[in-house]
Amino acid sequence: MRVDINADLGERFGVYDLGDDEGLMDVITSANIACGFHAGDYRTMAETVALATEKGVKIGAHPGYQDLIGFGRRAVAMPADEIHALTVYQIGALDGFCRAHGTQIHHVKPHGALYNLAAVDEDAARAVVRAVSDVVPSAVLVGLAGSVLVNEGRASGLSVAEEVFADRTYTDEGQLTPRTKPNAVLTDPAQIKRQVMAMIEEGLVTSTGGRQIPVQADTICFHGDGKEATALARTVRASLESMGIRILPVGGRG
Amino acid sequence: MRVDINADLGERFGVYDLGDDEGLMDVITSANIACGFHAGDYRTMAETVALATEKGVKIGAHPGYQDLIGFGRRAVAMPADEIHALTVYQIGALDGFCRAHGTQIHHVKPHGALYNLAAVDEDAARAVVRAVSDVVPSAVLVGLAGSVLVNEGRASGLSVAEEVFADRTYTDEGQLTPRTKPNAVLTDPAQIKRQVMAMIEEGLVTSTGGRQIPVQADTICFHGDGKEATALARTVRASLESMGIRILPVGGRG
Amino acid sequence: MRVDINADLGERFGVYDLGDDEGLMDVITSANIACGFHAGDYRTMAETVALATEKGVKIGAHPGYQDLIGFGRRAVAMPADEIHALTVYQIGALDGFCRAHGTQIHHVKPHGALYNLAAVDEDAARAVVRAVSDVVPSAVLVGLAGSVLVNEGRASGLSVAEEVFADRTYTDEGQLTPRTKPNAVLTDPAQIKRQVMAMIEEGLVTSTGGRQIPVQADTICFHGDGKEATALARTVRASLESMGIRILPVGGRG
Amino acid sequence: MRVDINADLGERFGVYDLGDDEGLMDVITSANIACGFHAGDYRTMAETVALATEKGVKIGAHPGYQDLIGFGRRAVAMPADEIHALTVYQIGALDGFCRAHGTQIHHVKPHGALYNLAAVDEDAARAVVRAVSDVVPSAVLVGLAGSVLVNEGRASGLSVAEEVFADRTYTDEGQLTPRTKPNAVLTDPAQIKRQVMAMIEEGLVTSTGGRQIPVQADTICFHGDGKEATALARTVRASLESMGIRILPVGGRG
Repeated sequence: MRVDINADLGERFGVYDLGDDEGLMDVITSANIACGFHAGDYRTMAETVALATEKGVKIGAHPGYQDLIGFGRRAVAMPADEIHALTVYQIGALDGFCRAHGTQIHHVKPHGALYNLAAVDEDAARAVVRAVSDVVPSAVLVGLAGSVLVNEGRASGLSVAEEVFADRTYTDEGQLTPRTKPNAVLTDPAQIKRQVMAMIEEGLVTSTGGRQIPVQADTICFHGDGKEATALARTVRASLESMGIRILPVGGRG
Repeated sequence: MRVDINADLGERFGVYDLGDDEGLMDVITSANIACGFHAGDYRTMAETVALATEKGVKIGAHPGYQDLIGFGRRAVAMPADEIHALTVYQIGALDGFCRAHGTQIHHVKPHGALYNLAAVDEDAARAVVRAVSDVVPSAVLVGLAGSVLVNEGRASGLSVAEEVFADRTYTDEGQLTPRTKPNAVLTDPAQIKRQVMAMIEEGLVTSTGGRQIPVQADTICFHGDGKEATALARTVRASLESMGIRILPVGGRG
Repeated sequence: MRVDINADLGERFGVYDLGDDEGLMDVITSANIACGFHAGDYRTMAETVALATEKGVKIGAHPGYQDLIGFGRRAVAMPADEIHALTVYQIGALDGFCRAHGTQIHHVKPHGALYNLAAVDEDAARAVVRAVSDVVPSAVLVGLAGSVLVNEGRASGLSVAEEVFADRTYTDEGQLTPRTKPNAVLTDPAQIKRQVMAMIEEGLVTSTGGRQIPVQADTICFHGDGKEATALARTVRASLESMGIRILPVGGRG
Repeated sequence: MRVDINADLGERFGVYDLGDDEGLMDVITSANIACGFHAGDYRTMAETVALATEKGVKIGAHPGYQDLIGFGRRAVAMPADEIHALTVYQIGALDGFCRAHGTQIHHVKPHGALYNLAAVDEDAARAVVRAVSDVVPSAVLVGLAGSVLVNEGRASGLSVAEEVFADRTYTDEGQLTPRTKPNAVLTDPAQIKRQVMAMIEEGLVTSTGGRQIPVQADTICFHGDGKEATALARTVRASLESMGIRILPVGGRG
């Protein structure tokens, strides 16, 4: 049994700090790096790619809507071609830094509202899939477990990883509970551990409505908004390892 | 005898139109495509790369300061590492679209205030050179003829093309006359033709102070702010061809 | 009989030109000036307020979503408080230029997707109404004829003007046909004149489905994307005047 | 003896937090609120004006260059008219929120690189002075003690307050040591207290070169980048009060 641990990193902007990149880099196997649209900037990208390379963490592009003030969490209505173009742009930009460090993009995972839209909307999913195929065809496409995005990616021949969330709750339909809802985020470490274990060992997550939703847990996402988040991720990782689950990047042959 | 003809294209933004890309694509051999910082956006980049590919025009990255409102014409004080990072980002982003069209970046030419700074400042020049070497090492670096940038590029082993301007005047020091000066831009077609011919045939340009400045004219830049500009470029190109000068991309083996 | 003629102006951005402000200023009685979010910038606002003051045209704030690349035509999901705050900000910013010219804001008309949302959504409409009441309580609120916005504005005690469009078509429900539809915009001058006349004289507009929709035409909007648009507006104005309809700003006692 | 205590607040942006506004509001008498160009956004402005009003802290506009990624600390070359326009815009925008809370702008203090430029450059200083006079003529203009800005403001008839810094060092010429220098910022609380006391009681500050520079300390600036900063400001304020120095807003008749 194996699983990848990923986190969204490189979300600083100018003088604005966010997240505990240093700490998380020691816990995760895959970093989803913001590409300057919903968060991050070119200097942060340079530093984050350097740090990931140094730590041996796999580098992923984390493209989102061009909406810094909304952190890419608000859907912006646009045609599929525009989704394709903004995804191509952001993957390309990150790849520039990868080449500058003699490495390459390992995976692509859309962010926020784009992630959510591509999880349910065929046109959006195909636009993202096409962008990955066009720019980094050997990269792994990471999407919500069971989503339209992973299905479309697989259908198009991309390597795909199904993602589950350590600290987000699920609706009865298998979607993430929207952040606007009060119960969207889990904070109790015991509950988070239970959810992670059930997802990996049984392939199931319990929805907010009490349903058992089947999930394929290729990679678990941890959010990194502080030292506590890092400590929690470290604890969960240790639990997984103590149960003999290997922590390896998706697509890796370990 | 041979020369390349280049123009800055892809400078539209959202609903805002600028330049005559369609017309110029039929006259030039190299397109410098704005990368979304000083002008251009991801949709415009997608469309411009598609158009250049279709027309057989070589594609160049045209990175600038992140200053849409100032069109990248104002210097923004920053350390060399930041210049490196913003150049890497923009080259990478454009390269994403090139890959999506099965092509690649042929050259890199900095824009506006970044072009001017890199023409005279070693640290800035080296930051740009390093960015090109890091991301697209086989691309041609285009810089002001005789500038620090072309010297640094050559010293680092990059292919280099020296650029002259059809419609910009030169100071006695061989720099472009700043746009804030009244005589910065030539508008008389006869004068423009004379300047171009002298630069290609004799390797000389007459400065605003009347000095003869030696220049190596590998590529001539035409500005494309309207149908008239295209017509002028077309006329000059025809004159060059009628004199037996071949119009070929820089670095091309034609 | 009287009517106001308005147009959206001050939509330039940096080096990007848009519209024929100079020409339209001689035809209209009310200018809706972009406030730097969906279009316009501080320099353009300064110039446009100066021009309107010189020409004796009433100055209105034209606040929109902060979405330059989408020109404010895409809805961005946000709570009502955020709509209030962005409207307050933009009205205030324009009012700064009005004070610098010894004048004041005469009216407020939301732009694009914000205009459309406030036409049908009570929360959005109330947020806009509250912003106007908070910052410029004596200004006229301009909204789509028959919309939720004008009803909410009237209910809150604001002066209200109902707006009709010279060159936009209407759905059977009395909404503007979305710009994504092929028949959203009228281009035939004769048809435009007929629509304007019917709206003013009979208080009716014919929807795309052939229904007669009652409208109160306090102010007619002309779009100004070129010299042709100005010429058309001039012609329609002349027709109106020749029929004895007075062209006066809304709320004016003329 | 009296002095005002001011701090730069409202510097959050979207999800990005910065500073300890809540804590500082209990220590200061004047808040300089970012206006959305170098920091801050419309929601943050709404919240910060509400908080200042509730706490009885005077509200000041803190306009800066439109450079979020550089936090307004980098000079952007522009003509004086553009400085005027961007200052008018930002003062107006903040004033919108003041009106929405039944209050008004009490003072204006330029930020960062604009503050520094206006301290030494007549054209820039006059552009800022003119913007204040145009939009909020009864507001107090706050500038570096002894600077061109305060002199120009006084000459034009504005109320003026001379500002000193608790934790910034001074050059022999009486300018702030640039932040790029290692000794630009004081961190030792005892040294900070000594500097503040000497400035208020003796009207002198010791430069990094050991010179005694005369200063008129109408208002002291504290920086608020964390809980420690607030604690320090609280301590210094208590020291001042214990010595019988009254803490009152500038221009107040207390």
